[in-house]
Amino acid sequence: MSTVGNSTNIFWQESPIGKLERQKLLNQKGCVVWITGLSGSGKSTLACSLSKELYTKGKLSYILDGDNLRHGLNKDLGFKAEDRTENIRRVGEVAHLFADAGLICIASLISPYRKDRDACRAMLPDSNFIEVYMNMPLALCEERDPKGLYKLARAGKIKGFTGIDDPYEPPLNCEIEINQKDGVCPIPSAMAGEVVTYLEDKGYLQD
Amino acid sequence: MSTVGNSTNIFWQESPIGKLERQKLLNQKGCVVWITGLSGSGKSTLACSLSKELYTKGKLSYILDGDNLRHGLNKDLGFKAEDRTENIRRVGEVAHLFADAGLICIASLISPYRKDRDACRAMLPDSNFIEVYMNMPLALCEERDPKGLYKLARAGKIKGFTGIDDPYEPPLNCEIEINQKDGVCPIPSAMAGEVVTYLEDKGYLQD
Repeated sequence: MSTVGNSTNIFWQESPIGKLERQKLLNQKGCVVWITGLSGSGKSTLACSLSKELYTKGKLSYILDGDNLRHGLNKDLGFKAEDRTENIRRVGEVAHLFADAGLICIASLISPYRKDRDACRAMLPDSNFIEVYMNMPLALCEERDPKGLYKLARAGKIKGFTGIDDPYEPPLNCEIEINQKDGVCPIPSAMAGEVVTYLEDKGYLQD
Repeated sequence: MSTVGNSTNIFWQESPIGKLERQKLLNQKGCVVWITGLSGSGKSTLACSLSKELYTKGKLSYILDGDNLRHGLNKDLGFKAEDRTENIRRVGEVAHLFADAGLICIASLISPYRKDRDACRAMLPDSNFIEVYMNMPLALCEERDPKGLYKLARAGKIKGFTGIDDPYEPPLNCEIEINQKDGVCPIPSAMAGEVVTYLEDKGYLQD
C-alpha cells in the first residue's frame, strides 16, 4: 500500500503480459520520439512522414499531437505557464504508456521549456526517449506561418507566443537535430529517413 | 482554427496513417473493454487473464489500471467526487487513444458512477466501448478484501469507500455481466473466455 501524490491506499497491479511480450508480438521496441521546435518548424510534417515510413516497414507507431490532445485529454488546460507544464506532463505520461505498450510513440509538441522536456525524459527508463529538435530559423517559421499564428502574435492578439514574446529553449543534448542544409530545408521523407536510420541503428525496429 | 475548453488557436492535425491502417497491421479492431465493479470483485484478475488469452491469440492489448495510473498520469488527483470524475475522464480519453491506435484497451477501474462511465462510452463512436460489469456480492468482495481496504473503511479509517459509505451504481445496459453461477465465482480463464467470445463474435479479433 502506498501514498502517492494526492492518493492513498493505491496498490501496483502487475500484469503477466509485459512490455517484452508485446514487443515480441510487434517485432519492435517501444519508445518515444519527442519532436520539439517552434510553431511552423515542421514537427507535424515530420510526425506524419515518420508514421508513414514506419508503416511501410510494418511497424506500429502512434502520433500524440499537442494540438489534437487539447481537444480531449487536455481540454481543461490553457496556455499559462502551469497549464503548459501540466499539458506536457500528461503527454509525457501517456507517451510513456504507449512506449510500454510496445509502440513507437511520436509526440509532436512545441514543448518550449527544457525542464518540461527533461521531466518527460526522466519518465522513460533505459534511454527510450529520443528527442528530435526541429532547428529551423524563426524567420523561416514565421514566413511559413501555416496557422497564421505569428501574424496574430505580432499584432498582439496572442500573448505568450513561443518565439515572439515567450522563449524557446533549445535542447542541449538531443538525440537528433534536423537542420537546413545550405539554407534549404530537407524534404519530409528525408527528415523521416534520419529518424528511421537512428531507430534502426539503435535496434528499435526489431524486438 | 477553433476554441476548445480553455484552449484557443488549436488546429486538428490529420495523419496519413489512420486507425484502419493500424488495424490492418495488427489484424484486430481497436476497442475499449471497460471493467467496472466493487473493490475485490475481480476486475484486475479478469484484466490480467484477458490480456493473457488475447496474447496467446496473437492480439495486442494494453491494461489501463486505475490504481497504476494514480502513480503517473493521475497522481495529482485524490478521491473527492470531482477528482474521481476527472480521474475517470482522463482514463476514458487515454483508452480512446489506445483504441484509436488499434489496441484492445482493457480499462480496469471501480468507476462507481453511471454518468462517468457513460461519458467515457460517449467518447467512443461506433459502439467500440464494451462495458463489463463484475456483479459480485458486496459480502464476497468484503470477505476477499485483497487490499485490506474494507476493513479500514468499516473502521472509519477510509472515508467515501465504494460499497460502504459511497454508492456503486450498477450499469443498466452493459455488454457483458460476470456473475456467480450457483453461488460459485467463475475461474479467471472462464471470465476471460466470456469476453474473448464476445470480441470474436463482434469481429474485433480480425481487421
